[in-house]
Amino acid sequence: MKRLTTLLACTFIALGSWAQQALFSGNEIISPEVKDDGTVTFRLYAPKAVKVEVTGDFLPQVKVQTPMGEMEQPGYAELKEGKNGVWEYTTAQPLSPELYSYKFRVDGMDYLDPSNVYMCRDIASYTNIFIVEKEKGDKGDLYSVNEVPHGNVAKVWYPSPTLKMTRRMTVYTPAGYDKGGRYPVLYLLHGAGGDEDAWTTLGRAAQILDNLIAEGKVKPMIVVMPNGNPNCEAAPGEWSKGMYKPSFMGHMTPKPVASMEESFPDIVKYVEKNYRVLKGKKNRAICGLSMGGGHSFGISKMYPDMFDYVGLFSAAIFLSGSNDPQQTALDAMNADPQLGKELAALFGANPKLYWIAIGSTDFLYKSNADYRKYLDSKGYKYEYVETDGGHIWRNWRIYLTQFSQKLFK
Amino acid sequence: MKRLTTLLACTFIALGSWAQQALFSGNEIISPEVKDDGTVTFRLYAPKAVKVEVTGDFLPQVKVQTPMGEMEQPGYAELKEGKNGVWEYTTAQPLSPELYSYKFRVDGMDYLDPSNVYMCRDIASYTNIFIVEKEKGDKGDLYSVNEVPHGNVAKVWYPSPTLKMTRRMTVYTPAGYDKGGRYPVLYLLHGAGGDEDAWTTLGRAAQILDNLIAEGKVKPMIVVMPNGNPNCEAAPGEWSKGMYKPSFMGHMTPKPVASMEESFPDIVKYVEKNYRVLKGKKNRAICGLSMGGGHSFGISKMYPDMFDYVGLFSAAIFLSGSNDPQQTALDAMNADPQLGKELAALFGANPKLYWIAIGSTDFLYKSNADYRKYLDSKGYKYEYVETDGGHIWRNWRIYLTQFSQKLFK
Repeated sequence: MKRLTTLLACTFIALGSWAQQALFSGNEIISPEVKDDGTVTFRLYAPKAVKVEVTGDFLPQVKVQTPMGEMEQPGYAELKEGKNGVWEYTTAQPLSPELYSYKFRVDGMDYLDPSNVYMCRDIASYTNIFIVEKEKGDKGDLYSVNEVPHGNVAKVWYPSPTLKMTRRMTVYTPAGYDKGGRYPVLYLLHGAGGDEDAWTTLGRAAQILDNLIAEGKVKPMIVVMPNGNPNCEAAPGEWSKGMYKPSFMGHMTPKPVASMEESFPDIVKYVEKNYRVLKGKKNRAICGLSMGGGHSFGISKMYPDMFDYVGLFSAAIFLSGSNDPQQTALDAMNADPQLGKELAALFGANPKLYWIAIGSTDFLYKSNADYRKYLDSKGYKYEYVETDGGHIWRNWRIYLTQFSQKLFK
Repeated sequence: MKRLTTLLACTFIALGSWAQQALFSGNEIISPEVKDDGTVTFRLYAPKAVKVEVTGDFLPQVKVQTPMGEMEQPGYAELKEGKNGVWEYTTAQPLSPELYSYKFRVDGMDYLDPSNVYMCRDIASYTNIFIVEKEKGDKGDLYSVNEVPHGNVAKVWYPSPTLKMTRRMTVYTPAGYDKGGRYPVLYLLHGAGGDEDAWTTLGRAAQILDNLIAEGKVKPMIVVMPNGNPNCEAAPGEWSKGMYKPSFMGHMTPKPVASMEESFPDIVKYVEKNYRVLKGKKNRAICGLSMGGGHSFGISKMYPDMFDYVGLFSAAIFLSGSNDPQQTALDAMNADPQLGKELAALFGANPKLYWIAIGSTDFLYKSNADYRKYLDSKGYKYEYVETDGGHIWRNWRIYLTQFSQKLFK
């Protein structure tokens, strides 16, 4: 073994010298360090830096001026320089159980934590992530990979004749699927700027489903997460458009040959042919966040006999408004015969659950409130959940947790 | 649509202000910019920086002193500060077609390119990546996602009774698999510090297979990429050990209950039960890089009737050496009865291909040369490929490209 160990050590150094500056500081930096009491310490080796800060969704929001007016974003906390060039900051309070995002700022430049290999992309930006977990069943536990049976997650190409493309989706099959049986299907849609990878990265969909199924709180189900941009085949870098930089408005240009709503039956058709599914309306659910909530709204009313469960998470519902400032949103909706007809058909088919959730400070709050007014005025039944906070993943994970427990029961 | 556009723009700014410092420079930075002639420009917005450099495998290697002696690593090139705080460097020469890795160094600190969302993790370090492609069929083309039918890539959990764990592997099924038919299987193994994600990230296995299958150069096959660390269930962050930092030596501690070699039939058994495979030795191939080359060496001789195709890529073959400096490696191998017996059985079963590839400056070059001497002394047939360079992904992608074209024909 002597020879083996020496050779491996050589390689380690060879790989490490280019790769890991932390080795040269004489210490292996641990960051973030999540302590048992829920406080978190961030560390960065930056011997020449003048100012090191951390920002993330664990810090209070602050108001900032932008060209579009005042907006909220996470604040910054300063790290203090300690010995050997290692800067450090510990949260003043324990953090509540959650998956958090953060990054550093070193002398004004954003900086990913080189000691933390866990990061997620949201559109074109990366942040590091960490999880605070205190006890079984809390959000930190629910978003973690636990010692439970795991479902499989596949990137699957399917034909979309409507969009004249082969397209990519993510498919979660629950633990035990390989042993046989038929399963209901949840279609889970991402937001603008996102893609078929979003729900299994920041959305933690596989962990949420694995954990809730293991506890018996969620029925074992297939979860289909398609790409919701009808002008795209797949996530950035995963199709022949090349390694371009994604953008929030990427789904608008070039104009697709058909809408996501129009093309949706292509997805259902492929899934029902290639997976062992339980068929029929009562075994299909659809939900999505933001743009995907808008898609769920649109698809469910375009195909009123397709889904018995519909979930709108911070949904981008842009109803047929006019530019007349005197007309209320409710009046505008009432003046739209197509909307009225489609929703009458949808609610006439008695869906088992029409579920609306939004954060109280979401920029889409008013359009959702207007939509609820319309539903109320028609006597259409729905469930409504309002949470703290805005248009953020923290809420969408909560909504998936709640909505998935209501399905197929 | 007016309302829609305004709301979307608001969100874009809201998301962007926290996420994308480049917005504040007034320009969207493009980096890296790969030009038609193959030169590449790197740009970084760093108005307060004193020195900005780029390092990557497109630059010449330089010798550096480490505690273990002199080693080679990629050199650094300096960016020049231009207007508006944007630094820039253009390669002096066009780069040859390849997938390249790079990162910045800003005033001494490693820095990922915030304008490039494409990055890969290698053990515990990230680098950005880009591809230079000049013409159809070159390495850049081969490693790109092209307009060809795509295979599916799944993360699959399987039971390993030998290791007393449920474990995770990556499975590539070729385009058309969902239409029926039976396929041969290539088992493709990663190196030390790696995991079941390695071959589909820096290894570009899905792209190489998609492209070569589309050209008719490779037979459609299933590719199984298991986790090769027998003390792990899965890649870091994907199992209940939590979000730990991976290390090169992670597969050594804690000591596994059995070796990767001993547990390998668990994988074959699961694959042959759950996929539509062509069975028998002539429809199975195994290969791997570094530690995975060592595994391929070990597994193929432990189960001489399992594989007709064996590929050792920069293989970590650590033969039963002694600490006696007077004993040659060949003498040591000849003195090992177990090795002799197993290799006699393997080569006695007439494998169709025993393929050895290594780079001329690989630190494992000598142990592979010694092993070849032994094979030669016994008259065992093998094919040998020697390339430039060392123990690097550039070589392993080349070896997969070459080896896969020789299989199942």
